[in-house]
Amino acid sequence: MMKRRKILEKVEGYVPGEQPKDPGVIKLNTNENPYPPSPKIIEALRNLDESAVRKYPDPVSLALRAAIARQYGYPGPEWVVVGNGMDELLAMAVRAFTDPKDKILSCYPTYILYETLALLHGARPVLIDLDDDFLFTEQFLETEARLCFLPRPNSPSGVSIPKQDVDRFCRAFDGLVVVDEAYVDFGDDNCIEFAKEFENVIVTRTMSKAFSLAGLRVGYGVAQPDLIAEFMKVKDSYNMSAASQAAGLAALEDTAWMQANVAKVRATRARLTEELIRLGFAVPPSQSNFVLAQWNRAPGAKDIFEALRARKILVRYFNAWRLENALRITVGTDDQIDALLAALRDIIG
Amino acid sequence: MMKRRKILEKVEGYVPGEQPKDPGVIKLNTNENPYPPSPKIIEALRNLDESAVRKYPDPVSLALRAAIARQYGYPGPEWVVVGNGMDELLAMAVRAFTDPKDKILSCYPTYILYETLALLHGARPVLIDLDDDFLFTEQFLETEARLCFLPRPNSPSGVSIPKQDVDRFCRAFDGLVVVDEAYVDFGDDNCIEFAKEFENVIVTRTMSKAFSLAGLRVGYGVAQPDLIAEFMKVKDSYNMSAASQAAGLAALEDTAWMQANVAKVRATRARLTEELIRLGFAVPPSQSNFVLAQWNRAPGAKDIFEALRARKILVRYFNAWRLENALRITVGTDDQIDALLAALRDIIG
Repeated sequence: MMKRRKILEKVEGYVPGEQPKDPGVIKLNTNENPYPPSPKIIEALRNLDESAVRKYPDPVSLALRAAIARQYGYPGPEWVVVGNGMDELLAMAVRAFTDPKDKILSCYPTYILYETLALLHGARPVLIDLDDDFLFTEQFLETEARLCFLPRPNSPSGVSIPKQDVDRFCRAFDGLVVVDEAYVDFGDDNCIEFAKEFENVIVTRTMSKAFSLAGLRVGYGVAQPDLIAEFMKVKDSYNMSAASQAAGLAALEDTAWMQANVAKVRATRARLTEELIRLGFAVPPSQSNFVLAQWNRAPGAKDIFEALRARKILVRYFNAWRLENALRITVGTDDQIDALLAALRDIIG
Repeated sequence: MMKRRKILEKVEGYVPGEQPKDPGVIKLNTNENPYPPSPKIIEALRNLDESAVRKYPDPVSLALRAAIARQYGYPGPEWVVVGNGMDELLAMAVRAFTDPKDKILSCYPTYILYETLALLHGARPVLIDLDDDFLFTEQFLETEARLCFLPRPNSPSGVSIPKQDVDRFCRAFDGLVVVDEAYVDFGDDNCIEFAKEFENVIVTRTMSKAFSLAGLRVGYGVAQPDLIAEFMKVKDSYNMSAASQAAGLAALEDTAWMQANVAKVRATRARLTEELIRLGFAVPPSQSNFVLAQWNRAPGAKDIFEALRARKILVRYFNAWRLENALRITVGTDDQIDALLAALRDIIG
């Protein structure tokens, strides 16, 4: 048989959350926005004409990158890279800034893709345990590596570490810091200005969550132009389809729509958190569109997950250390959350 | 300054052909199909609803892969991988089947991305010169490497090597053979059955050209399931947007539309070839939707390229060894080709 890559033997590939076909399922497992995207996005897709379909898209997505730069007060498109989902940007960061065998730093628990991307590259993932409040420890802040994935807010905890800790880390760290702000639109503050301040920082974001655009795959990163240039070297020639570019542009033309949805999600998150605590769950303070509901009693979290599933309510259960006794619950609509809470009362009551 | 990757110093990244904004330009430079995509594709994009935009797409593109398997008589989706354009599949082949420093074989001249992908991976590109008829030499057939990009038809020549040479090569070669059939729909025959026959072959294709779908980024590869499994390990979690999956499915529902366009392109190609030869160009026999027009007289090919450009006719000029005296011309509509031929007569007459 043909020779296989040894480094792939231990890699299973990232296993995404379940995408059920049944429309009756209440889907609180993959942190999608429960509210529809802006009508401007739907309109932009309807307006894709034969020529946009037939011809290659702009290989460097200039209009979209310029719009993102304008949105966040950066001088121009040379400060921005866009990706086919933020995952593509994370993969590009690894390829552009680490050599095989380099150390790639992140924390635990966090987005499991960081480790997968390191392994796929033949690099060495170094995951430093978070403390009991899901905050970074001194050990994290002192570890040396070629690249660091620094998620803020983090998943599955939903917790944002203090901004001054990010600042302190970026100053001290020698390699590239990828500040992963996938969920930041649901939080109280952000680190976007660090992209201007530090020569070793890229702030990455997605339109999947806050802009309700997961189906169209639009991620972006903001960094100093010479960092962006390295990303442009490793990207696929035409990584953004005409549909993705058009949808991203339309999303930025209607940030009010996104902000209104975010406000609803934040309000529901507060209510969900309060009710979960009332039911006996421990819930770290979330700055995201999900909460981590920790539960040390009987029935176990996995049993609760299964019982919810039987009631067609899908949440995320991670069969992993420190997460055995927890469920990650996406903040849905008020009705969805009411259904979830009723089911939980029934299961654990 | 932060440390950069040494291997990226010599890489400029792939430079795609120009995408002019001016709609008055006759665009014969990037091998797009001059005819519109099937109305079924446009309809599928119009039918993308809020839910498709809001939610994550199927991460493994099961319906599209199953449809491709059915189309080509393969048992099921486990024989197929799809990519965000065929370029993504080529990059995945390198990542899934070669280690840094491995040799990656291809020919010269050919699609320049093969070499770029090898360099980006830290692998060693080995490019064996084609003979004067743009056919593979014995040296090519005897070179050992971990992976081989075998384009058929090839670009920029448009030439297809004899099928029995592909067969012979696949039998002898130890590594993965990527039979790149991006342009095969415009040719007389194909190698799709080699994916079933050989355990070391993946046949890759794109919907960009024959299906007029360049804007939506749909590539696919067919291979034995255990090869496909390796591709699935290295792919991005959600590499195909809801729009790309829907467009690809719709394209396969209307292959008659594609075949009618292909027939037109082939007829125009025959006429273009004949006229170019009459004007004094040498034109290798093309099995693609473009021709290589070779020209050793004055004015030089580059001057002709510039003169065409001044007349708003864009063809492709490669400033590279063995291609200095040639233009690659995409087969456009009959009207576009008439305009091109008139301009050529004017410039060289």
